[in-house]
Amino acid sequence: MPCGPWPVVVTLGDPGGIGPEVTLKALHVLGDAAPPLLVGSLDALRQHATRLGYDPARFVATTAPFGAQTGDVPVLDVTGGASFKVDWGRATEEGGRVSMLAVEAATRLCLSGEANAMVTAPISKEAIALAGHDVPGHTEFIARLCGVEHPLMLLVADLPSGTSLRVGLVTVHVPLRRVADLVTKDAIQARLRTMEEALRQDFGIDRPRIAVLGLNPHAGDGGVLGDEEIATIRPALELARTAGINAHGPFPADGFFATDVAAFDGVLAMYHDQGLAPFKALGFDRGVNVTCGLPIVRTSPDHGTAYGIAGQGRADAGSMIAACRLASGIAQIRTEAP
Amino acid sequence: MPCGPWPVVVTLGDPGGIGPEVTLKALHVLGDAAPPLLVGSLDALRQHATRLGYDPARFVATTAPFGAQTGDVPVLDVTGGASFKVDWGRATEEGGRVSMLAVEAATRLCLSGEANAMVTAPISKEAIALAGHDVPGHTEFIARLCGVEHPLMLLVADLPSGTSLRVGLVTVHVPLRRVADLVTKDAIQARLRTMEEALRQDFGIDRPRIAVLGLNPHAGDGGVLGDEEIATIRPALELARTAGINAHGPFPADGFFATDVAAFDGVLAMYHDQGLAPFKALGFDRGVNVTCGLPIVRTSPDHGTAYGIAGQGRADAGSMIAACRLASGIAQIRTEAP
Repeated sequence: MPCGPWPVVVTLGDPGGIGPEVTLKALHVLGDAAPPLLVGSLDALRQHATRLGYDPARFVATTAPFGAQTGDVPVLDVTGGASFKVDWGRATEEGGRVSMLAVEAATRLCLSGEANAMVTAPISKEAIALAGHDVPGHTEFIARLCGVEHPLMLLVADLPSGTSLRVGLVTVHVPLRRVADLVTKDAIQARLRTMEEALRQDFGIDRPRIAVLGLNPHAGDGGVLGDEEIATIRPALELARTAGINAHGPFPADGFFATDVAAFDGVLAMYHDQGLAPFKALGFDRGVNVTCGLPIVRTSPDHGTAYGIAGQGRADAGSMIAACRLASGIAQIRTEAP
Repeated sequence: MPCGPWPVVVTLGDPGGIGPEVTLKALHVLGDAAPPLLVGSLDALRQHATRLGYDPARFVATTAPFGAQTGDVPVLDVTGGASFKVDWGRATEEGGRVSMLAVEAATRLCLSGEANAMVTAPISKEAIALAGHDVPGHTEFIARLCGVEHPLMLLVADLPSGTSLRVGLVTVHVPLRRVADLVTKDAIQARLRTMEEALRQDFGIDRPRIAVLGLNPHAGDGGVLGDEEIATIRPALELARTAGINAHGPFPADGFFATDVAAFDGVLAMYHDQGLAPFKALGFDRGVNVTCGLPIVRTSPDHGTAYGIAGQGRADAGSMIAACRLASGIAQIRTEAP
């Protein structure tokens, strides 16, 4: 068994959601050859394992420098061995507290070089708010720990058609009414730079072609339906091209995913639902969220806690499996880079 | 040959776009048994026919009460027999003028009962603006002629999976920065009423189940990402349910089309790209736009003028064919209604 550096650490997410379940199912599919280090509440994980018919005794607490017997799955227990009452399908303060402790521990393991990549199972924004965290989600929290102000959320899915969807967002977890003001030239340029670098360095794409979507319906239709394309997006694109980025657009968002997406290595959407609704419609069950622009490698499945089916054994682990594979793959590319 | 009432009239759209081409291809597929009445520039149509290898002499001018010989396709020539210089792939004032004359004529034929339904090929918003029209598009123009203030744009597609996607929009052709203010309780309730009635009367669905999407990412996530779900959408949904409408939500828009859509007869999205980007991603080449809440039946293909491929014979007529079939189908249901 490896005794660190761990190839991948996986945070278990909200104990009342499907995070522990999809993690357990992913481990089962991915095999035991080099199990990742799991981080969260060991007691909660064992309760999930029992419900799913896995042997709870296989999961053993470990501490730095992290060792475990063959056949065991090592768990860094952020509760220090405490028992945990799983509230199936409910957001609780304790669930929020534990899930964020895990994210913090995993991030620090990556920053210190003890782990090469981290994968995060879904947390509940409501639960982490109950626990006193004032961040909108995972990504912002991890970025803060890494000292990065503007990470890029990139959604990745390999479609049956052979197309690789890679969708980045200029704005993420903000009310829709604030979006137009937050789509600035600086923000677009910064996201384009981060996206270009990620596609090149982490996905091995030489001179990636990036499509930029408009903000307004029909990309503003020549200014008739909003002027941000003319005043903000086009100038930002010009500047990005001058800086050597192979960026195109702005494209009307409504038809883009039906007709143009296969011609590009990445798509930069202006806001959450504009990029994610078509992404998930096309890439369901295989989508992975990659946080670009960080010094560490971080991926996550593109679904939430799914409280409605928590603890029932019905959660699909496809996205979690893809997230684990992609994290390993990116970590390997980075490790081998000259 | 029927001498009116015409079952369906088809407006040819912008002469420089793919409208005439997809209309000609649709006629070819749908057969000659009961050809629709075409409305537009006869000369422009003949130029498209020639490019596509169809016999231009088959298209003959007709006037009220509209007669044509067997084998002929009757055309109501809104230019009065004038010649027309087609600017392939370009928005022109003359193209805008002619395309809107056709829409006006077709609408009046439906309002007077001389036609049962209309199908509109795509116009160019830029061209109609050049021609002095200050409406954002077809739908608003037709609604005004019908004396209807708030029609509902409903996108319909039958997917290979068997799911029928039917997506309505609360706001349509408005800049994104105005959307949040336009999503009012009244607007949501009015759209829900129109949608419920259309699904019942025009699609024959008894007590249709309608899903309503949130405005903000994650439907506001309990208020953390915007309060419109709490302050506006939920109260509007409550009122609609009190009025007997089988409405549910608000659902986060990003995952809805991946997981929940099959369980509903219709989806009400809050704005253009939120509904149309996932709709087109899933329903490409088979989507039809239906304008609900009008006294007349009107459908259209869900694509634009596609200037980039105009006159090249490459346009896919699938959406136009579906639009013609759906228009006939709805007209028949309305005609047979007790």
